[in-house]
Formats: sequence, C-alpha cells, structure tokens
Amino acid sequence: MAELVGNVLVGQSGGPTAVINASVAGIVAEALNHECIEEIYGALNGVLGILQEDLIDLAAESQQQIRALRHTPGAALGTCRYKLKKQSDYERVLEVFKAHNIRYFFYIGGNDSQDTADKISKLAQQQGYELRVIGVPKTIDNDLPITDHTPGYGSVVKYTATTIRELACDHEAMGQGDLVSIVEVMGRSAGWIAAGAALAKRRDHPHDPPHLIYLPEIPFDQAKCLEDVRRVLKREKFCMVVVGEGLIDADGNYVAADAATDSFGHAQLGGAGDFLKELVETNIPGVKARLAKPGIIQRAAAHAGSKTDADEAFLAGQAAVQAAIKGETDKMVTLVRGDTDHYTCETGLAPLAEIANGVKKLPREWINEDGTSMNFQFLRYAQPLIQGEVAVPFESGVPVFARLDKVRVDKTLPAFVA
Amino acid sequence: MAELVGNVLVGQSGGPTAVINASVAGIVAEALNHECIEEIYGALNGVLGILQEDLIDLAAESQQQIRALRHTPGAALGTCRYKLKKQSDYERVLEVFKAHNIRYFFYIGGNDSQDTADKISKLAQQQGYELRVIGVPKTIDNDLPITDHTPGYGSVVKYTATTIRELACDHEAMGQGDLVSIVEVMGRSAGWIAAGAALAKRRDHPHDPPHLIYLPEIPFDQAKCLEDVRRVLKREKFCMVVVGEGLIDADGNYVAADAATDSFGHAQLGGAGDFLKELVETNIPGVKARLAKPGIIQRAAAHAGSKTDADEAFLAGQAAVQAAIKGETDKMVTLVRGDTDHYTCETGLAPLAEIANGVKKLPREWINEDGTSMNFQFLRYAQPLIQGEVAVPFESGVPVFARLDKVRVDKTLPAFVA
Repeated sequence: MAELVGNVLVGQSGGPTAVINASVAGIVAEALNHECIEEIYGALNGVLGILQEDLIDLAAESQQQIRALRHTPGAALGTCRYKLKKQSDYERVLEVFKAHNIRYFFYIGGNDSQDTADKISKLAQQQGYELRVIGVPKTIDNDLPITDHTPGYGSVVKYTATTIRELACDHEAMGQGDLVSIVEVMGRSAGWIAAGAALAKRRDHPHDPPHLIYLPEIPFDQAKCLEDVRRVLKREKFCMVVVGEGLIDADGNYVAADAATDSFGHAQLGGAGDFLKELVETNIPGVKARLAKPGIIQRAAAHAGSKTDADEAFLAGQAAVQAAIKGETDKMVTLVRGDTDHYTCETGLAPLAEIANGVKKLPREWINEDGTSMNFQFLRYAQPLIQGEVAVPFESGVPVFARLDKVRVDKTLPAFVA
Repeated sequence: MAELVGNVLVGQSGGPTAVINASVAGIVAEALNHECIEEIYGALNGVLGILQEDLIDLAAESQQQIRALRHTPGAALGTCRYKLKKQSDYERVLEVFKAHNIRYFFYIGGNDSQDTADKISKLAQQQGYELRVIGVPKTIDNDLPITDHTPGYGSVVKYTATTIRELACDHEAMGQGDLVSIVEVMGRSAGWIAAGAALAKRRDHPHDPPHLIYLPEIPFDQAKCLEDVRRVLKREKFCMVVVGEGLIDADGNYVAADAATDSFGHAQLGGAGDFLKELVETNIPGVKARLAKPGIIQRAAAHAGSKTDADEAFLAGQAAVQAAIKGETDKMVTLVRGDTDHYTCETGLAPLAEIANGVKKLPREWINEDGTSMNFQFLRYAQPLIQGEVAVPFESGVPVFARLDKVRVDKTLPAFVA
C-alpha cells in the first residue's frame, strides 16, 4: 500500500453522547503519530460544516483541551441532523475535500451518518479522488449492526442504572404500597436503554427495582400493565417502572406520538411516561404516580459516565486512523468482544454499506417471558459496558469541560448555495 | 444541669434529600460518645413509626452501614408526610416515649416536622416528662428561617448546576438559534433551587447558560417570557431556561396547577415545564423545545452530591446530640455562616416555635432587575454550599448504598388505633 500523504478531516454527526468527544480525542492523538498526515481539521456541525467550508485546525488546540475531550459531553465540533439530499451536495463535499487536500475522512455517528460517509466514499472512488473514509460508531441507542455495542451506550446505561438505584432509596422511604415511579428513557426504535436499567438490580435479587421495564420490542398492553403494577404494589412499597420513549401498541402505533417528525422522517417522540402516569392514576385508585423524564440529561451525563465506554470511544478513534493509514476505506470501526469469560474488547472493521441504515434490535430471547424484565443473557452482555467511573475534574463545585479554540481554516471556495 | 440518663430516638420526616441520612450518621456517631445515652433507636417512617411503636435498634447496625449513610440518598429510616392531628396522637407519642424511656428525641425534617417536634416537646413539659427535643434541619427547598441554609440544598443545587453544564455542551452542538431547552426543577414555594442553577455559569460570564431562570418569586408574564426567549435566541445557539415548579402568575395562581393537594394542604405541582414548552412552541415559529424534568432524581442524586453539604448534615446531627446532652431542648440546630470572606460554617440553635411553619423567601434583592437571573449576592451565598464532591463507592458499575438491618425493638404497648 503506497503511503497517502494529506490532511485529516473529522466530523461528528447526529445526537451527542457522553463520549463522542473521546473518539475525536482518539483520532487526534493517533493522527499526530503519523508523518503522512499533515493537517488535522475538524468540520463544524458535521456535513453542514463541510458544505459551508467551516473547518477548524484541531492540531492548534492545546493538549489539555484534547485530553479534556475524553470527559466532555456534547459534540465539541458541533453536529447536525442535516441529510445530504442532492447529488450536487455530495459533489460540493468532494470539492471542499480537494480544496483542503483531505485524504482521510473520519465520521463519527450512527446509522444515517455512516450512510452519508458511504456515499461520500463512493463518489470519491467514481471521481478517482484518493480518499480513505472510516466511520466511527456512536449512538446511545446501541442499534448499529455488526459492532458488539456502540460507544455512548455504556454511559447512558450507567447513568440510568445509577439513577434508578438512587430513586429506589428515595421511594423505599416514601412508598407505602401506593407509589408508582415512572422513568421515561430515550430509545426511539429499540429498548436497549430501557433494558439497561436492569443493571440497577443486585445479582440474584430479581425483585430489586426497576420492577417493570416496558420496551418498544413488546407491544404495550394497557390491561396487562395495570395488572403488572398492581402485582408489584402488593409485594413492594413502591413500583418502579422504566419505559422507553418508543413504546408501541399492538397495532404498531406509538402509544404517545407527537405529530412532528425530524428531518430524517423519524417520529419525534415523547410522552410515553406521561401516558403511563395517566393510565396508572386513572385506573388504580389511591395510587400516586411520579414521573421523571431526564430527557437529554441522560445522554449528556458525563459526570456519571462509564470509563469502559469512554476508553472504548477513544480506542475506536485511534483504530479508525490506524485502519486508514493501512489503506482501509469505506469501513466502520466495530467493537469486537473477546469470547472469554473475562470481558475484553478489540476493534474490527465492517463495510459502511452493511452498517448504513441497519438497525440492531434487542434480541427477544434476552427478555424474560413476562416481557417486563431482562434475563442473564442481557445482563452478561451489558454489565461489562458500565464498569469504571470517568474522572471528571471539578472547579468551584461544577465540572469543567473542554472548550476548543476553534481556529478557523481559511476558506478557498465560493460560498455554498443550498 | 443534671445528667439525664435514657434512650435516644431519631426520626426522619418529609421528602428525602441526598444528605438526610448523613444527619442520622452524625447523631449515631455522637450519641455513642455519651454514657448517659443507653440505647439508640430509630423510628420507622417518622411519627407514623412512633405511633405504631415501630422502632429499630440503631446501635445494632454495623459501623460500615452507619458510615455508608453519609453518602446514601433517601431516608434510611423511612419517612412520612403524616401530620399528627388529634391530641390523642400526641399522647400516644408520649406513651411510646415513656414505654421505651426515650429521653432524647431528634427529628430531622423541614418546617412541618419541626412544628410536630415542638408540639411533642410542649406536651412532655405539660406532663412533667423529662424529654429533650432537638430538631435537625433538612430540606432541599432551603426555606427554613433563621438557619443560613439547610442540609440538602447544596447537593440538589450542585446536581442542577452540573446537569446544566452538561446539557449546555449537548445544546451547543445541536442548536442553531432555534433550540429552547427547559429544565423544570423542584421548589414548591420558593425559587431557591431554580436560582441555584445560576451556579453553572462561569464567573464573569453572564451570558453562560442558564440564560433565563423563572422563579416563583416573580409573577410569570407570558409576553415577557416570549420576548426573553427571542432575545436570547438572537444572541445564542440555544436558550436554556430553568423553571421552578411553583411558578405563579400575576394573580398568584400556579401557571400549571393540578387539583390534588398533599396531606398538609399543599398543592401538588408539576407541569410548569410542560406549560413553558407549549408556550414557546406555539408562539415562536420554527423553535424546537426540549423538556427535562428530573423530578425526584434531583433530590436523590447522591453521586453528584456536595461534600460541604453532606459534611454539614453530619455536623448538624452531631450538634443536636451535643446540645441535648448540655440540657437544651425545644430547639433546632441551625447552620451559622462565619462573617469572614473565607466560608466557614458552625452550628447554632433556634427555638422550634420560631422555625415551625416559617418560610424563608429568596431575597428579591438577590435577583437581577430583569427578574430572570441572579446577582453576585446570591452567587456569594450559594457558591460555598456546592464545594467538594461526595465519594460514592461503586461496585459492578453502580453506586452502593447503605442497607440497614433494622433490628426491631420489642413492642410493649397495645397496637395503635388511629
């Protein structure tokens, strides 16, 4: 493989996570090791920044700031949900790449983003422009195929399990067989996050909270739910319910859908928790229902992040650069679990085309017969992903996060016209 | 002062906090130092447990568990919102005290609880039963009079400020001048918690998030709110709004009230955040509003607790015992701030009657002219209360909290009939 000399461009896309910046840190740290890489640029706001030639010089950032990315939530480069629509958009991307001699493109994102990366790569090949494109997985939803899990998932689940344990202490003190606590968690099309709440249970304590988990994978049945809650309240001081936002009924409709959809055509959800609260309060006399809806807090909670997750996000960034240097392109880094009892994780590669627009569902066989709890197969899968705590530095009582200088790269092209 | 030999009873009351158990730990640790104290009992579920003679032997708990109370949220003894109503209830309390030779009663709670403690104390005096009653302050609401602040407040505010900083990282990546993020925080009658969100701002960065804080102290004006939000969105990528649940309109009505009231006659709130979300989305075209409603998560978030707060809660428990041993009764421990620039905190005492049912409002002069931000006087007051991080031990990726054995004290009285 001939050495490809040129510049790196990194972009972040889709919803932020607690660890997406750790992947940027991994890319920058690794890129600095390779002489064939001349400049390390970041695209502001994903593909939007590429179209608009809004690039920053990541090598100009201080090492402290790059290191601080390893515990900083959000997406330090900015992100977008913009979908490249027209052929001319893709051509503009390539124009920008050529103008800045971008030869290595690393795109950190979920399904849609890997699709975008794939299309950019294909167009470069058609045009005979030598470009190596490697995707880096990212999504709290854990729904990318092939990779064992996705960076971002471990942290959101650690936050959720931590929160459930804390809420349980509160409810244990307050409940008198009449308290239903509902926690609505994210997860549009799969129940990975809701399932992860099961990690709050102690080993061999199946009656620990959360008592009921309602997943998008299991069509929601109101009568059964009310029966479930009544059964728990007979046994426990309180009933803790975790519900995924994407809960659907037997007809496949969201139990609480909003009319709005996002720019990818996904329904914007919200309200499954409110729906359950109403259901329980209306139908079980004397019950007090309490709803917690952490919303975006859960994916931003770096202070409660998983060290395993943050380290793997960094590793995925490093591996992307290493693969590209070796001549790989049109692939996404995957996380590959070792098959020993002791958890180990290495990286692999998978074709972007196989990742793009794929969805990994929570296996039905990891959900118990009752449809409201997870079995040992799930716990064995998820437990290693939340191990270790990210050390976030505090100053004056609040966490301190990276703030990039974002030194702009000079524009050389005419302005982008959408 | 003649030495009073007898037993201790500790109770917890009202809504739990992240540090109410630290006060129990302080009481137990201090009580063990005094020979005149023979047994150390805990009342399960506050006055309810006293009425029902449900007492546990706190001296039988392991030292590890008592120490673990210093980082355990909830209320380890259980709590209640039960209000003693009839004279016969108070007489029953005293009967239980006599049956178990309770000579020292420590009640950890807010306004209503201190009122209860006061009435128990008065009845004991009337009956010539020697009893020393010392209240220990507790409430996330920070609304008790006389004491500089209340244990529980620092932790809820540290959690809130931490969360705002993290959300800001996420929104900074996503916002394009069209994102309004609403965080609804607790605070029934005063805006102390909402105000505390201002601690997320860096010093001398008044434009840092949260951009707008709506407090129950300032009558809510819809037109002004919409103007506020529009102004921020012109300047920033996103507008972060913190709203207290007890928001009221110019007529003094809750902007989003529920019909229900709790057993003390307080309105059960909720919905101020939903109200704002609706208001903004309906009136500002193209704006996306996101609501986070951490609910009880915020007061249970021990993993994000303030060390200063937890230490002061422990100190207040110790001070209660020391005061009672010295012969004090019918008082509540207060936190007294030193008048030097460097923050110091000692304990004092104030008559229960002056605490009971009093409410400390957020001073109007600590709120800026605009009514939506806090000035340096508030920041100088609140900043010291969130310093330091509580070290919560993690096992298998989740925090581990105290679990008391709760060895029951034998009952000697006929069952309580309400």
